[in-house]
Amino acid sequence: DDDRIINLKLGDPMVYERYWQQMGHMTTMVIPGWQSLSYFSDNNNDLCWFLEPELAKEIVRVHTVVGNAVTKDRYIVVGTGSTQLYQAALYALSPHDDSGPINVVSAAPYYCSYPLITDCLRSGLYRWGGDAKTYKEEGPFIELVTSPNNPDGFLRESVVNRSDGILIHDLAYYWPQYMPITSIADHDVMLFTASKSTGHAGMRIGWALVKDKETARKMTEYIELNTIGVSKVSQLRVAKVLKAVTDSCGNETAKSFFEHSYDEMSERWKLLKQASKTSKGFTVPDFVPQRCNFLGKVFEPQPAFAWLKCEEGIVDCEKFLREKKNILTKSGKYFGDNLSYVRVSMLDTDSNFNIFIHRISSSFDSTL
Amino acid sequence: DDDRIINLKLGDPMVYERYWQQMGHMTTMVIPGWQSLSYFSDNNNDLCWFLEPELAKEIVRVHTVVGNAVTKDRYIVVGTGSTQLYQAALYALSPHDDSGPINVVSAAPYYCSYPLITDCLRSGLYRWGGDAKTYKEEGPFIELVTSPNNPDGFLRESVVNRSDGILIHDLAYYWPQYMPITSIADHDVMLFTASKSTGHAGMRIGWALVKDKETARKMTEYIELNTIGVSKVSQLRVAKVLKAVTDSCGNETAKSFFEHSYDEMSERWKLLKQASKTSKGFTVPDFVPQRCNFLGKVFEPQPAFAWLKCEEGIVDCEKFLREKKNILTKSGKYFGDNLSYVRVSMLDTDSNFNIFIHRISSSFDSTL
Repeated sequence: DDDRIINLKLGDPMVYERYWQQMGHMTTMVIPGWQSLSYFSDNNNDLCWFLEPELAKEIVRVHTVVGNAVTKDRYIVVGTGSTQLYQAALYALSPHDDSGPINVVSAAPYYCSYPLITDCLRSGLYRWGGDAKTYKEEGPFIELVTSPNNPDGFLRESVVNRSDGILIHDLAYYWPQYMPITSIADHDVMLFTASKSTGHAGMRIGWALVKDKETARKMTEYIELNTIGVSKVSQLRVAKVLKAVTDSCGNETAKSFFEHSYDEMSERWKLLKQASKTSKGFTVPDFVPQRCNFLGKVFEPQPAFAWLKCEEGIVDCEKFLREKKNILTKSGKYFGDNLSYVRVSMLDTDSNFNIFIHRISSSFDSTL
Repeated sequence: DDDRIINLKLGDPMVYERYWQQMGHMTTMVIPGWQSLSYFSDNNNDLCWFLEPELAKEIVRVHTVVGNAVTKDRYIVVGTGSTQLYQAALYALSPHDDSGPINVVSAAPYYCSYPLITDCLRSGLYRWGGDAKTYKEEGPFIELVTSPNNPDGFLRESVVNRSDGILIHDLAYYWPQYMPITSIADHDVMLFTASKSTGHAGMRIGWALVKDKETARKMTEYIELNTIGVSKVSQLRVAKVLKAVTDSCGNETAKSFFEHSYDEMSERWKLLKQASKTSKGFTVPDFVPQRCNFLGKVFEPQPAFAWLKCEEGIVDCEKFLREKKNILTKSGKYFGDNLSYVRVSMLDTDSNFNIFIHRISSSFDSTL
C-alpha cells in the first residue's frame, strides 16, 4: 500500500459512515416523485420562506439537547452548506452605501477558503483584510471567529478588540465529538453545518442562528438571489438525521451519536499523538482538558483537523509529506501561516487514516 | 373566492404536480442514511467532481431523445438551479485581468432577476449593462440570450451583432411543452433547469452544457467556492425523474411526459386567449406556429409565462390587476419594459389558474 496516494487535504467526513450504516434504516427516507415541486417550503415563514419547518424544528431540538448554542428568539436561515451562509452574512452585514468595501479579517491561522470566497468576485461590498491579529485600519470591519478554529482546533474569541467590529461566528466544529461543550454559545450570527456535525457533507446543508431580524432578512435575500432557496429534499434528509441524533441522546441503553463519534475521534487522536512521540518528526498542538457539560466528563479537544508541524529541519511540510510519504495535505501558507505547518483531515475512512498513521510513525529524515 | 389573492408573480411549476402523482411510485426514491456523506460524487471526473454520474447520463439521454440541444463533446456542469450556473458562467467568462467589470446585456424585455443577480455584490468582474438593443459601448461584453424568452416567450438570437460579444444561452424553456423544437441548439454555454423542464423546482438543480473545457473548469471553480458542490440527493432525485421522462417518450401505449404537459399548456393558453377576446381589456403576444421535430406537429408557442398587456387606457397593469382583480403579477418595469405590461405565471395550480381566467374574463373598466 506504500505507493497509494492518501488525500487528506479536505475534511471529507467519511469517519461517520460506519455509524450511519449501523443505524440501518432508521434514517432511510422515501421521497415520492410529486413531492417538493414548489420553490416554497413554508408560507407561514415571512422571513426564510425556503426553510423546511421540519428542519427548523430539529435544529432547535439538537442545540437544546447538546447545549452548544442559544436558539430562543433566534431566526434560522438555511443555506447550501455554511459556505453559502458565510457569503449571505457578508452580504447582510456589509454597508450598502458608498463607503466602499468593508474589510473582512480573521486571526491566522484562518480557514483557507475565507480569503478565496471573500475576494472571488472582487465585490465592492467587502474584501479580504487579512490577519485580524495585525489589523490596524480605522472604521468598521467584519471579523470571522471560527471556534473551534479550522485549522488548529483552538477555541477562539474576537481578537480585534474594538467596538466597530461586526462578528460572524463559524461554529461548524462546536460539537461534543470534537470539543468539550463548556458554554452555550450566544453570538449575533452563528453558522453551523451538517457536514461536520452529522457527517452529511453531500447534502450541502448549513444553518445560521441570527439575532437580528434585518440581518436574517438580508441573508435570506442573498440566498434567494444566489440559488432561489435550498434543496428541499436535502433539508428533509438532514431533518431526519438530526432527529435520529437527538433521539439517540435520550437512549439509556445505547451509546448516543455523540458518544460514538467522541470515541472514534478520541481513538484517532490517541494514535496521532503516539505517532508524534514515535517519529519525533512532527508535533501537534497541546490542548488543555476541560469539562464538557454535555458528555459530563473532562477531555482534551480532538479536532476534525490536525494542525501538524514538521520538525527536524523540514522547511516545507506539505512537500515533505507529499514527496516522501505519499500523503496530500494542505500547506500552512494557505491559512496565513508558514510552510512548516500542514492541515490534515482526521475524518477520512479508517483505511486511509490507518495508512496515514503508519506512514508518519516512521522516520521523518528529510534526506530519505 | 373573489377576495382570495392569487399570486402569479413567480413561475412556481405546480402544473406538473398531477402528472407526477399519476405516475405513482415510478420515481419514488429511497435514500439510506449512510448514503451521500462525502462531498465527492465522481472521482473519475477531473472537471466537475461533484456531478453525479447518473445525472450526467440522464441529461445526455433526455437531450438526445428530445433533440433540443447538442451534448456530444460537451462538458456538463451541475448547479444549484440554473441561477447559480448563470453566476458561474459570468465568473468563468469575465476577464480576470485589470480591464474592469465587463458589461452584461440582454434585450428588453429581459428576465427580471438578471440585473439584480449581476449587480448584487457590486462585482469588479462584471456589471449589468442594460438593454442589449441600445447597447453601444466598445470592447468585449457578455450578452444573455434567453430563448424562448422570459417574460415574453419568443425565440431569440443575439441582438448585438459584434464579434467581441460573449454569449450565454439560457434555454430553460426550450422544451416541447412550451415551444416547437425546430432545431438542435448548439451554443457555447447553454443553461437548463429541472424547475421548468420536469417541474422539480424544490430540488434546485440546473445544468450547463459547455463547449470549452476551460470555461467549464472555471464554472466548476465558482460552484466550489460558492457552495462546495451541489446536493447529491437532489441530483439523484432529478436523475430518476429525467429517466422517467425519457422512458415515457419511448412508450407507444401511453402519452409521454411532454405530450401530457403540452396538452396542459395548450388548454391553458386556449383559455387565456378566449379570456382576452371576451374581456378586450388585455392582449397577449401573437406567435407564429412552427413544426416541432419532437412532437411531429405544428403549433404555436405556449410559454410558461404570459406577457400580458393591459389595454383600454390602463397605465399601470400590475396595479390594476392587484387592486381590481386581486391578482399579483410582476410589472413590466422589472423587465426593462413599461408599466402596461405584466408577467403572469401559466404554471400555477389548476385552482389558481382557473380563478385567474375567471377574473380576467370580466370587464377591465379601470374606473370599477
